[in-house]
Amino acid sequence: MVISKNRVIFVMGVSGVGKSTIGSLLSQELGIPYFDGDDYHPKENVLKMSNGEPLNDHDRFGWLASLNQLAKEQVINTSCIIVCSALKENYRTIISLGIEVVSKWVYLYGSFEQITKRIESRLGHYMPSSLLQSQFEILEEPKNALKVNVSLTPTEIVKKIRKELMNTSEFGLFGLGVMGKSLSRNLANKNINISIFNRHVDGVEENIAVDFKNEFEELETAKPFDDIENFVNSLQQPRKIMLMVNSGKTTDIVIENLLPYLSEGDIIIDGGNSNYNETKRRLDYLLSKNINFIGTGVSGGEEGALKGPSIMPSGDVEIYKMVAPYLNAIAAKDANNLPCCTYVGKEGSGHFIKMVHNGIEYVEMQLLAEVVQILKLSGNNNDEIADILESWKNSADSYLLDITVKVLRKKEGSAWLVDKIMDKAGNKGTGNWTTIATAELGVPSTLIPAALFARYSSFYKDDRVQLNNLYGDANTSTLNLDTNDILKAYQFSRIMNHFQGFNLISEASKKHEWDLNLSEIARIWTNGCIIKSSLMIELVEILKETSNILMDKKIIEQIKDLKSSINIVVLQCVLNELSTPCLSESVQFFNGYISKNSPANIIQAQRDYFGAHTYQRIDDPSEKFYHTNWS
Amino acid sequence: MVISKNRVIFVMGVSGVGKSTIGSLLSQELGIPYFDGDDYHPKENVLKMSNGEPLNDHDRFGWLASLNQLAKEQVINTSCIIVCSALKENYRTIISLGIEVVSKWVYLYGSFEQITKRIESRLGHYMPSSLLQSQFEILEEPKNALKVNVSLTPTEIVKKIRKELMNTSEFGLFGLGVMGKSLSRNLANKNINISIFNRHVDGVEENIAVDFKNEFEELETAKPFDDIENFVNSLQQPRKIMLMVNSGKTTDIVIENLLPYLSEGDIIIDGGNSNYNETKRRLDYLLSKNINFIGTGVSGGEEGALKGPSIMPSGDVEIYKMVAPYLNAIAAKDANNLPCCTYVGKEGSGHFIKMVHNGIEYVEMQLLAEVVQILKLSGNNNDEIADILESWKNSADSYLLDITVKVLRKKEGSAWLVDKIMDKAGNKGTGNWTTIATAELGVPSTLIPAALFARYSSFYKDDRVQLNNLYGDANTSTLNLDTNDILKAYQFSRIMNHFQGFNLISEASKKHEWDLNLSEIARIWTNGCIIKSSLMIELVEILKETSNILMDKKIIEQIKDLKSSINIVVLQCVLNELSTPCLSESVQFFNGYISKNSPANIIQAQRDYFGAHTYQRIDDPSEKFYHTNWS
Repeated sequence: MVISKNRVIFVMGVSGVGKSTIGSLLSQELGIPYFDGDDYHPKENVLKMSNGEPLNDHDRFGWLASLNQLAKEQVINTSCIIVCSALKENYRTIISLGIEVVSKWVYLYGSFEQITKRIESRLGHYMPSSLLQSQFEILEEPKNALKVNVSLTPTEIVKKIRKELMNTSEFGLFGLGVMGKSLSRNLANKNINISIFNRHVDGVEENIAVDFKNEFEELETAKPFDDIENFVNSLQQPRKIMLMVNSGKTTDIVIENLLPYLSEGDIIIDGGNSNYNETKRRLDYLLSKNINFIGTGVSGGEEGALKGPSIMPSGDVEIYKMVAPYLNAIAAKDANNLPCCTYVGKEGSGHFIKMVHNGIEYVEMQLLAEVVQILKLSGNNNDEIADILESWKNSADSYLLDITVKVLRKKEGSAWLVDKIMDKAGNKGTGNWTTIATAELGVPSTLIPAALFARYSSFYKDDRVQLNNLYGDANTSTLNLDTNDILKAYQFSRIMNHFQGFNLISEASKKHEWDLNLSEIARIWTNGCIIKSSLMIELVEILKETSNILMDKKIIEQIKDLKSSINIVVLQCVLNELSTPCLSESVQFFNGYISKNSPANIIQAQRDYFGAHTYQRIDDPSEKFYHTNWS
Repeated sequence: MVISKNRVIFVMGVSGVGKSTIGSLLSQELGIPYFDGDDYHPKENVLKMSNGEPLNDHDRFGWLASLNQLAKEQVINTSCIIVCSALKENYRTIISLGIEVVSKWVYLYGSFEQITKRIESRLGHYMPSSLLQSQFEILEEPKNALKVNVSLTPTEIVKKIRKELMNTSEFGLFGLGVMGKSLSRNLANKNINISIFNRHVDGVEENIAVDFKNEFEELETAKPFDDIENFVNSLQQPRKIMLMVNSGKTTDIVIENLLPYLSEGDIIIDGGNSNYNETKRRLDYLLSKNINFIGTGVSGGEEGALKGPSIMPSGDVEIYKMVAPYLNAIAAKDANNLPCCTYVGKEGSGHFIKMVHNGIEYVEMQLLAEVVQILKLSGNNNDEIADILESWKNSADSYLLDITVKVLRKKEGSAWLVDKIMDKAGNKGTGNWTTIATAELGVPSTLIPAALFARYSSFYKDDRVQLNNLYGDANTSTLNLDTNDILKAYQFSRIMNHFQGFNLISEASKKHEWDLNLSEIARIWTNGCIIKSSLMIELVEILKETSNILMDKKIIEQIKDLKSSINIVVLQCVLNELSTPCLSESVQFFNGYISKNSPANIIQAQRDYFGAHTYQRIDDPSEKFYHTNWS
């Protein structure tokens, strides 16, 4: 993708709208070169057209590719104007391929009668007006362009283009918290003209946007606001406004505050951690107001948002295409240099997978916390634990492993900082939502709840201290585990975690008919996001073949290799009265999930006994329901 | 409580409304004895009244008690009529104490002017009309009475009373599924005149109510309906209609269908397993229509509903009092012969505790399933397992243990029936809701989710069989557990289950300001319901002292005795690759919940690293939040 401070202004429309006139006028006005697309037609096309034959799509490919090449070459050094009809969406896609972010479209339009009149009064042009009808037939009006009616005078048109394109921003960022600031700088670093907004609250939030702009060089051309109307008016239409505000009520309030100033077709992008059900509700609501809505997960934390996050947008695919250039520009890149951003699916599917991403993250963090505690109680100090974890990078590399090593090493004076941190884990709701989703969908993704509840337990610090006085400390004197067993147990649990996470996505996709691509989701999680890891890279390929990673040959081999270690680690911890809820649950889950026979027949019999809930029989494949009078 | 086919008709109102006239006329009409309450006044009261002195409440106590005694004696053998002013709610409470269900109240009313006129035209009565004002001042109009205006002629009044009281039912039961039928028979067995309703669906549900009435002798006087209007009109006002229909949409539809026929002050009782949030919503909605609403949990299954369930009503306490006689009449009795029914609290608190009841039930059932599987894999057949479980009754008696023994023994020909039952456990939603509630409330009640997810896992039978082929069977050859250790492990887990259940109720009570009485909740769960057990009886006393049963001395002793056994059982199962999610989670939870220090400091450091989420410090009691630049 070409990222440049320069812009290519494409002036498009059917023959006879006056594209060349406007192009050359604009060129004089702005002092940038102007190219007439028709000059780049191959001879065959010119001949065809002058014979009154319409061009077919094949005829146009060479032409469009050369225009794209021209634009790419120009934009490296200068802004420019290129004039061409570009009547279909896919023509425009070809022309602006790789330069989406720097392309600006001006669409000159008029009625058939208007244009016919203009053409009839024109002399010496090689295209007879009889072809106009076919142009109108194939015309697909661009959604993402500045629309100007040809009834204006050329001077008026140029003035309008200048005002709208050159004095306005392409993208708006609403809400300058930790993530909003990082994303703003990321957008500005990609030479995207942005407007940035933060509310004004007397004595609490004052001049946030202005101060922020002045703080960073890359924000030199950014337009800062604390007034919503001015912010909205500073944006090119259709406006693209990304919200980075607190999820929940705040998001609804912000949308209501924006609505009076928006125009039909504007696009709101919600980049917060919104609940996927609310995203669906907002999408429907805004559609009723003719405003477009894209809900997108954004992962990467402060640093990822700045250097390239993983982005998970969903909603209407056509609307997605209009914001894709911006999101792709700021996203992290995977190993093949493709953006870690993809159209996830319809409705709130983007926020759904972001929620599951965070659920997986909860478990990865909890597993590391459990591992650190085991290593600590085995007699290692923080530096020694960091050394051990660092040595695991060969086989278990991940962002979270990496930062845990750094966290453990961090000193405050001569003491380790981590030892001063209160052991009460907070949460912002996504682990809770994932737990609710897995319960509601009937999917046993047990590790996310286990990690969530471990945080909840930690929060009851007063109770814990009081109960500890009553019950005494655990005797961990016999804790004696091979470090390699701990690594293998950790890896085993991580595989279960990723199985459960993708299984939850897969089942949600079936239920909501989202048709999600699991491999592609894994791919955009290979970089930029908090759960990027070597395992995730492995899963990109595996998920191309199966939605159930436990059925994959390589995974089966790994699990068979890891299984005895997780058994040893969990039972040693039980023996030493050390709580390891996620390590433990991973093996409980696995043992249950690979059993041909579960003891659920007992439960079905009990339910039928007291509630006449009926049961099915293993000897009746018709799946008929039976009831027995048990007493 | 006196339960009789006979009724006491109390005719009440201020002096001069014509109570005696109506009483004696009614007596002739119905052929039942009539008593004038005034004849039972002690001499002192008569003297006071004839001196123009108003009676105080103390004066009335002996009088009210003797009227109550009179009514109780009469109603054993015959219906009767008792006339007395009974102006205050608590007078009426005393008069009808213990005979609530058989008491019918007729309230004769008129304006002060109407009554004054009547009194002035009366001769020879010992009460001067100057006292009327004081009577109007203390008058509390009854909500639960047939109101008749004195402007009607005595004949009209008697006709009205006869029509309303003698030809109508006291209680309506809507929906004749398994539970609705059992509750109907239970009400009828208590000599309550009921109307029963079941919808008509061509070819699917036809003549359900009529056929059901004809099937059981006790329903001889029950009025059967499949027409809503006739059903509603067959009930005395204020009507008391108990819904026993599917929770969710059906309940809303039924309420809408009933609404057009109801009158102000009528009471709908929802006895289904409704979500507590929906109960709150319905309560508010119906209040806006001047209809009262009581949401009540009902537990006991088919048999409990018939013989005496545990009943958990909530809503407005004054409305509760109006339906309490009926609910108390049909409820199970605890060891002290008190009904297993109590006013739980406001809003949907009754359905909330029923939901948690079911959550606890899920865990109790799962634990038994795990225990049975361990015993089975240790080489016992179903009869041997039943013998072992039966021997546990001394120390771990419960309804669920009892039925599990019966389930295990049940044969079909020479084979055990339980072995033919498909091992896919169903669920009806309450375990799911409890999991959602514990996640939303931030309370680590982990066992209910563990039991829920065990059911979900069991449901993926096809996956389990396929994965079993890939991974092979678990090797359980070394499973060698002492039966006493299994019992102790089971008991340990049950204590954790009950701790978590009551903790969830306690935290919900705080959050919603329900002010719930945990001991009383345990008490109504000591009989009638699915989770009745000797442990529950123990908890009634313990919960009087503490809301955290883990802090109770006796529980501490028990846990210290049980702990090593649960360790052994869980680690042996891990070693033998046998999944025991609830046994395992109980020890994981406990070990975590009694630790002074959790590894949550690692999680807080990670969160601050990637998301600037901040953390608190153990060396700063101000609970200030810190942020570190970690990298």
